[in-house]
Amino acid sequence: MAERRHSFYLLTPGPLTVADEVKQAMLHDHSPNAAPHSALTARVRRYLLELCNGTETHVCVPLQGSATYAIEAGFHTLVPRDGKLLVIQNGFYGLRLRTIAEGIGLPTAVLELPMLPLPTAADVEAALDRDPAITHIVVCHAETGTGILNPVDVIAEVARRNGKRLLVDAVASFGGVPLDAAALDLEALFVSPNKCLESVPGVGIAIVKQSALEAAEKRSPSLVLDLHDQWRFLEKTGWWRWTPPTHVMSALATACERHAREGQAARLARYRRNWRRLVDGLRARGLTTLLPDAVAAPLIVTVHDPDHPNYSFQAFYDALERRNIVIFPGRLTAAGTFRIGVMGDLVESDMEVILNAIDEAFAELGVPIGMAVDDESVVPAA
Amino acid sequence: MAERRHSFYLLTPGPLTVADEVKQAMLHDHSPNAAPHSALTARVRRYLLELCNGTETHVCVPLQGSATYAIEAGFHTLVPRDGKLLVIQNGFYGLRLRTIAEGIGLPTAVLELPMLPLPTAADVEAALDRDPAITHIVVCHAETGTGILNPVDVIAEVARRNGKRLLVDAVASFGGVPLDAAALDLEALFVSPNKCLESVPGVGIAIVKQSALEAAEKRSPSLVLDLHDQWRFLEKTGWWRWTPPTHVMSALATACERHAREGQAARLARYRRNWRRLVDGLRARGLTTLLPDAVAAPLIVTVHDPDHPNYSFQAFYDALERRNIVIFPGRLTAAGTFRIGVMGDLVESDMEVILNAIDEAFAELGVPIGMAVDDESVVPAA
Repeated sequence: MAERRHSFYLLTPGPLTVADEVKQAMLHDHSPNAAPHSALTARVRRYLLELCNGTETHVCVPLQGSATYAIEAGFHTLVPRDGKLLVIQNGFYGLRLRTIAEGIGLPTAVLELPMLPLPTAADVEAALDRDPAITHIVVCHAETGTGILNPVDVIAEVARRNGKRLLVDAVASFGGVPLDAAALDLEALFVSPNKCLESVPGVGIAIVKQSALEAAEKRSPSLVLDLHDQWRFLEKTGWWRWTPPTHVMSALATACERHAREGQAARLARYRRNWRRLVDGLRARGLTTLLPDAVAAPLIVTVHDPDHPNYSFQAFYDALERRNIVIFPGRLTAAGTFRIGVMGDLVESDMEVILNAIDEAFAELGVPIGMAVDDESVVPAA
Repeated sequence: MAERRHSFYLLTPGPLTVADEVKQAMLHDHSPNAAPHSALTARVRRYLLELCNGTETHVCVPLQGSATYAIEAGFHTLVPRDGKLLVIQNGFYGLRLRTIAEGIGLPTAVLELPMLPLPTAADVEAALDRDPAITHIVVCHAETGTGILNPVDVIAEVARRNGKRLLVDAVASFGGVPLDAAALDLEALFVSPNKCLESVPGVGIAIVKQSALEAAEKRSPSLVLDLHDQWRFLEKTGWWRWTPPTHVMSALATACERHAREGQAARLARYRRNWRRLVDGLRARGLTTLLPDAVAAPLIVTVHDPDHPNYSFQAFYDALERRNIVIFPGRLTAAGTFRIGVMGDLVESDMEVILNAIDEAFAELGVPIGMAVDDESVVPAA
C-alpha cells in the first residue's frame, strides 16, 4: 500500500494540493510598502519571465484577483476598441475567453471548433480570411475542461504570417508545459499561481510584450484592471497600486523557489509520470479516457463514467470526499465524464493512493469495475 | 517592561498585525467548488451583513482582488452612465474615490473640502444644489490618510432628503466603527478584510442594498467587476464565478469568528484604549498629533515630526524596522507627519512596546524627545 503523503488531496485542475512549505510562507505578515515585499514581488516577476524566455522582450504584471482578472485586464489594456479579437473556442475555457470578450463589449469574432481534431493552421487562416478586421487572436493553451493541449506554436506561426497579435491563456499550463514568449512573439500570456506553479489562489499574472504595454497607456476603461498603470506604478515605486495579497505573494515566492529547485522540465516529467500512472491504472480497471493520449495535456485525466447501473457521479464524488480526496464536482464540457487533476505536490505513489481510493469507492457503490481485469492490461482510449 | 506579544508588528493602517490563529487557517487547501468552502463563504457573507444590520435589506458580495476592486465594481454596477456621482473629497481616500470614478469615465462631480472642519449638511446640500444631475454620493468613512472620521449619518440624512443614493467607503472602519446600513439606507458599503476585521488582504467585499443590485443586471461594462453577476452566481451555485482566494477566505472566516467572540463594541473599545494610550504616550514625549481628538478615528494616530535637526523620517522608520516594527513609509496627506495604526491583534501593552521602541529609535537618532518631559503630562493637540 502506497504511503499517504497528504491528509487531504485536492485533485481539481487548480486550486490543487499545495506543499506545506508554500502554505507556511503565509504565516508571516508583510507590509506591502516595505522593502522585503517589494523584493519578493520583484523576484517573482523576474522568475516568471525567465520561465517563458521573456526577460529581454516581456514584462510581468501581477494583478490582485485571479487569472480571470488578468485576462479581462489584458483584453482591456491590449486590444483597442477599433481592433477585433478572434477567440479560438474548442472547449470550456475557450468559451470563457469569449464570454469575457463579449461581456466587456470588445469587438469579437469566434472560431468555434469541435473538441477534436485540434485546431489547424488552415482553420485559423480561414477565420482570418473571413474577417480582415481581426487584429488580435486569443487561444487557451491547456483546456482543462477536457484535457486538450492546443498547438500554440502552430497558431503563433499563422498570427505572425498575417500580422496579428496572439494572446495565450496559459493559466493551466504555465510552469509546466513550456512556452517561449520571445520565440513565439506572444503579445501576452495569462498565468495562474495555483496550477503548475503549485501555489495558492488569490492573484492573477499577465506577461506582456513590453512594446505592446508601452503603447497601451490610458487604453483600459477599467482602472483596477489597467495593466499599463499597474506596471508603471510597480516599476516606479516597487509597490502595488493598492493593497496586494501579501500572504498569497509570500506563498508564490516560496512556490517559485520550489519550482526553481525542481526545474520546469522535471516538473513536467513528474506530472507526466503521475498522468501515465493514473491513466494506466484507470484503464487497467476497465475505464476509458475521453481523449487519446497524443492530444492530452499531462495535467488532468478526463474519464468516462463506468457503464453500470450502480454508478452515480455524486455517490462516487461523495465516497472519494469521505476519504479526503476531492475532485471537481461537475462536468464542464463532456457529459458522462469525471476529471482528476495530477498537478500539485503529487508524485506517482500518490496516484496509487488515489487509485486505491477509487477502488474502495467503486466497491462501496457496488460497481464491479476492475475486479476481473488484470493490472496493466491497458485498454486503449480511442 | 511590557511583554512583546508579536515578534513582528505591522502598524500600517491595514494590512496589519494578524493573529496567528487567523493565519493558521490558511494551512489547509479547500476546493472552491465543494460544500465546506461554500458554507464558509455563506457564513462570512451572513456575518458581515449582521455587523451592519443589513440582513433584511442588503446582500454581501465578496469579490476577488482588494477593497479597491469592490469600489470600482460598485461604481460600475450601481451608478448608471446617465447618472452622476458626487465624490466628497477631504483626504487621500476621497481622492482615490475620485480617481476611480474619473478613471472609469463615470460622470463625476467633486466636493473638495479641506481636512477640517468636517463636511457639514450644508456643504453637501450646496453641492447637490449646484448640480442637479447628481444621482449618487460617495464618501470615505475613516480617512486613514489623516485619521479623520467623516460624519456618514449627517451625509446620509442629506442624501435621503434629496433622493440621492449614498455609497460609503467603509474600508478602514468596517468591523470597528459601527454603521447601520438599513437605518442609514445605504446603497452600498465597501469593506476590507484587512482592517478592523483583522484578516489578511486578498479579497474585497461589497455590501449592497438588494433592490439596487437587482436593478443592476448587465449594467457593468466589466465582467469580473460585475457585482450583480457575482451575486447571482453565488446565490445560484454557492460557488464564486472564478477561482476565489480559498486560503484568504479561510482566514477571513476565522477572523469573523474571532470578531464575533470579541464583539464589535469591545473591539472598538480595545482600539480606543490602544489609541488613547498611544496618543497620551506620544504627547507625554512632547509630540503633537495632527488632529484634535474629537474628530479622530481611534484607528490610526497621525503625529507631527519632532522639530529637531537630528530627526529624519527615513532614519526613524529604519530604526523602528530594525526592531521589527513597521509603520507606513510615507505621508499620504499631511507633510511632516508620521502615522501609526492601532488596529489589528493589538492591546494596550503593545502600545508600551511601541512607545519603548520609539524612545529607543529617537535615542539612536539623537533626538532628545520626551527625555525631560514627565510621563502623563499631556500636551493638547490643538
